[in-house]
Amino acid sequence: MELFYGRVGDENLFLFDAEESAHMVKVLRHKAGDRIQAMDGSGILYTVELQECSPKGSAARIVGEDKDWDRREYKIELAVCPTKNNERYEWMGEKVTEVGIDSLVPVIGERSERKVYKTERMRRILLSAAKQSLKTKLPQVMEPMSVLEFIERTPKNALKLIAYCFEGEKLSIREALEKSSNPEVVILIGPEGDFSPKEVAAALKAGFKAVHLGPSRLRTETAAICAVMSVYNKYM
Amino acid sequence: MELFYGRVGDENLFLFDAEESAHMVKVLRHKAGDRIQAMDGSGILYTVELQECSPKGSAARIVGEDKDWDRREYKIELAVCPTKNNERYEWMGEKVTEVGIDSLVPVIGERSERKVYKTERMRRILLSAAKQSLKTKLPQVMEPMSVLEFIERTPKNALKLIAYCFEGEKLSIREALEKSSNPEVVILIGPEGDFSPKEVAAALKAGFKAVHLGPSRLRTETAAICAVMSVYNKYM
Repeated sequence: MELFYGRVGDENLFLFDAEESAHMVKVLRHKAGDRIQAMDGSGILYTVELQECSPKGSAARIVGEDKDWDRREYKIELAVCPTKNNERYEWMGEKVTEVGIDSLVPVIGERSERKVYKTERMRRILLSAAKQSLKTKLPQVMEPMSVLEFIERTPKNALKLIAYCFEGEKLSIREALEKSSNPEVVILIGPEGDFSPKEVAAALKAGFKAVHLGPSRLRTETAAICAVMSVYNKYM
Repeated sequence: MELFYGRVGDENLFLFDAEESAHMVKVLRHKAGDRIQAMDGSGILYTVELQECSPKGSAARIVGEDKDWDRREYKIELAVCPTKNNERYEWMGEKVTEVGIDSLVPVIGERSERKVYKTERMRRILLSAAKQSLKTKLPQVMEPMSVLEFIERTPKNALKLIAYCFEGEKLSIREALEKSSNPEVVILIGPEGDFSPKEVAAALKAGFKAVHLGPSRLRTETAAICAVMSVYNKYM
């Protein structure tokens, strides 16, 4: 099964841009009349029948909608500091999208080596990962913000978890998830240099629970994947 | 803390080869008299005092041994089919080493796209990952073998899990781990084209339990990481 990305237009049409259409027509040799599966990132799986089909753009008629295709029992907002090496951060983005998250927030910590971050590439990578793993719900990629700003903006009613390295009272993430029935989880992962004590104090004050990710010393991107997979594991 | 790799020599000496010594001397400017931490891959953390130190090779005196540094409650043998794209497989090797496994077996499935596999690069990658994550126990990388051969050679008393995609009666890996108190786990992950029914039948006959890795459609390398992290999660 192949999943194409486009948007809902007027009058029950589904529209594909030039890039997607070129792939559809030139590589996969689709033509008018073909029925294909499509997503617009909202979570719905569309079945559409191609009407006009060219490498410059295509239009299709929506013939079916499955609103339950990507329904998940949990929601994850993953805030993680961009790593110095962009490739590692992008691998992480791909992996967590395959597993299933709702939003990715690049946060800049006081000790972050990378202080600026451009989201454009990550959005393309997550779209590609969603299509490949047949996910119709595309994770949102937020614009970067400081860790402290993120902490202030986190919704009150989520289960909020901060994983930091320096000494402190922490539950394992598994225990923290076991103790809570809240399916909305916010995960906050620090940079290679760890969160600062000030950032951790602010998080705890805002209701974040301190967690550790087991005895192994994990890279930032591995820690993020580990945390997401802990949630996924609970609900599998 | 930096971890250096070498081997135990005669008379309580610890020896470093040219490559390691060059890094030690030229980059980190170590000299005779310095105390450093070292590993030989056995699991022991050595504290050694440099005696002779040159870019061509170094020798140190062992002054301390910590046998518990890398003690883990579980053992994992991870057998996974090499992916068509080598980089993905190597990235997986790095991640599972950070988390902690005991051996990696490249297995060739009937439906594998990649039928040959050279282990040399992977060994270097796992060593680098072990050093970076301060693991003194280096996972073994076995020479490739067929899936059927691997199934025959698996020890009887481990908890053996096979994750395949086609329909069948399966527990989630979390449930399979919950039901067992066996800390020795063998994980078998198939190629992009899945295991063949013949391979799955052979595995089940040899005592493997059929598991799934949740509702998401995971790439081979992501499935391997997910399975390893499920074990890690249980014991964290």
